[in-house]
Amino acid sequence: MKERVYNFAAGPSTMPIEVLEKARDELVSYGDSGMSVMEMTHRGKDFSEIFSNAKSLFREVLSVPDTHEILFLQGGATLQFASIPMNLMNGGTADYAVTGSFSGKAAREARKYGDVNLACDTGARGFDRIPEQNELKLSDDASYFYYCANNTIYGTEWHYVPETSSALVCDMSSDILSCPVDVSRYGLIYAGAQKNIAPAGLTVVVIDRGLAGKHMDITPDIMRYDVLIKNDSMLNTPPCWCIYMLTLELEWLKKQGGVAAMDQLRRERSGMIYEVLDNSSFYIQKAEANSRSFMNATFRTPSEELDREFVEGAAKEGLVNLKGHRITGGIRASLYNAMPLEGAAALADYMKRFEAHNTCLK
Amino acid sequence: MKERVYNFAAGPSTMPIEVLEKARDELVSYGDSGMSVMEMTHRGKDFSEIFSNAKSLFREVLSVPDTHEILFLQGGATLQFASIPMNLMNGGTADYAVTGSFSGKAAREARKYGDVNLACDTGARGFDRIPEQNELKLSDDASYFYYCANNTIYGTEWHYVPETSSALVCDMSSDILSCPVDVSRYGLIYAGAQKNIAPAGLTVVVIDRGLAGKHMDITPDIMRYDVLIKNDSMLNTPPCWCIYMLTLELEWLKKQGGVAAMDQLRRERSGMIYEVLDNSSFYIQKAEANSRSFMNATFRTPSEELDREFVEGAAKEGLVNLKGHRITGGIRASLYNAMPLEGAAALADYMKRFEAHNTCLK
Repeated sequence: MKERVYNFAAGPSTMPIEVLEKARDELVSYGDSGMSVMEMTHRGKDFSEIFSNAKSLFREVLSVPDTHEILFLQGGATLQFASIPMNLMNGGTADYAVTGSFSGKAAREARKYGDVNLACDTGARGFDRIPEQNELKLSDDASYFYYCANNTIYGTEWHYVPETSSALVCDMSSDILSCPVDVSRYGLIYAGAQKNIAPAGLTVVVIDRGLAGKHMDITPDIMRYDVLIKNDSMLNTPPCWCIYMLTLELEWLKKQGGVAAMDQLRRERSGMIYEVLDNSSFYIQKAEANSRSFMNATFRTPSEELDREFVEGAAKEGLVNLKGHRITGGIRASLYNAMPLEGAAALADYMKRFEAHNTCLK
Repeated sequence: MKERVYNFAAGPSTMPIEVLEKARDELVSYGDSGMSVMEMTHRGKDFSEIFSNAKSLFREVLSVPDTHEILFLQGGATLQFASIPMNLMNGGTADYAVTGSFSGKAAREARKYGDVNLACDTGARGFDRIPEQNELKLSDDASYFYYCANNTIYGTEWHYVPETSSALVCDMSSDILSCPVDVSRYGLIYAGAQKNIAPAGLTVVVIDRGLAGKHMDITPDIMRYDVLIKNDSMLNTPPCWCIYMLTLELEWLKKQGGVAAMDQLRRERSGMIYEVLDNSSFYIQKAEANSRSFMNATFRTPSEELDREFVEGAAKEGLVNLKGHRITGGIRASLYNAMPLEGAAALADYMKRFEAHNTCLK
């Protein structure tokens, strides 16, 4: 067994070692059940406890008000790209803020089910910034406003909550539970779990109950929020193992001090990387300074060859998965909740050494 | 940690202990990767190997011909209830054989997307049998014929493959990999993994490539078989952990002798239970003898009170989850691939003792 590495992957991504060790210790036989969590019937006593624990921990950690339901689903963000317009658009109009690849995909999918108004589209300038409130073009009759809080590929993040008259819908896949959120301002928040909260295969949806029940007739039952709320996420068998892992992650997160502590830590981690970048005449950043992400730092060296050398050299030091997304190239360091400060510090140190080495050589 | 039990749950259900122990040993750090499988980026080298291994093992074990694609998806059977008509019905007609709860749900969902012809509906007589070929009412213009191979709730199973002129579509959630199947006869086979092959959160679809690409316009991208085939199941992040567990299960299954050995074992396991039932004047079976399932034996005692006593007494001997489905009541023993012969023997022995005890008392 090789020593564990610092894993900067954008998702699925690193998890706390304490969480993994607990999962390992309980894997074959959970508590007094005499079986693995993976073998438990989802309607039995043992799994019901895990499930309700996951829900109440999530509600507590993210301060979800009683007006909002928490759903544990399958299908990832990509299924939500269709579920959201099928349930909330009602064949009418919705505003979409396109600030990256995933919000663009969501907007394209929504066009199948109604009219999409682009509140903004920063694609022409390579998605290098988040527009300000007064730049958003909102339509009068929108049923909701959709945005993606953090753009993993481009390393940008919304640092404010948009003001809209329609329901606010947000893809928080890559920054959920990394900071406090006023959930009451949102109609719907969702997140694929595999970046910041649990293994791949679980999607968490937090929805204002008042929004459910307005779906189009052609909406599959398994995508109808009203049906899912009524069945408490168990219209069919839920992704049980991922929900169990979520409870371990949430318990760990609480022990670290909750989302307020996570917010502090994400600023420290990304701060270490941005400090190197801001003091460098070697590395190139595309994301505008006031739009930069706390979760994913994206940058490049002066050449593709040096980018490759950077990534390969880092891997030799146990700093892995630093290659940028195939759309952008370059380098990307994902700095999620489970990344220890030591990992970010090791990367910052490596960056400085790599720059010094390659500047001397010039 | 409590000693492991014999778990007769209908799904999620028991898994081989060797598989669980291997998963435990590799959980924190997989091979030379320095990370858990749960932390691996799905586009990286390590997970790509796991993924292609899962596909090739599945193809080998079920003898899937090259004409058919293997997809690893999320959403369970319930999402397929909608995906199948959205992709294959084309707004036309399809034949549905309703022989239980899940095929009934599939037929109801399909009505949203076209005309459903009921080739049979055994609901009036409590789903106690599988109709014979000459009882099936097939329509002339059906785009496909849909059936559920094994009915977990009612304990019945199709012991023949229906002859149809339209494409054969089959839900094999509860008996896939339990016997050899001539895949070339099918247009589409699918299975929620959580009964017989892997943890909950993975759906395997085996589809004749020629059937893809005829979807309705309103089909979400993530449900379009043509898109999923083109993206090799990775339009978005797949349920990585479940796919990894599938590889361990498939390796175990191969070592046991493959699906031919599983077929022999399922006959032995269910044979032990049916032998007790056939020689009993105490237990009551509803499923007709020639429709009985190899996977789920359903029966009852003369009273609900005795049913409860049976289930509680069995649990005290480490034979758990024997309570029948809430629709039917009674007792159900699910006897999937991972149930050791010793488990079935222990249950048969308990059944005999329970009968003797309660017959003496009369």
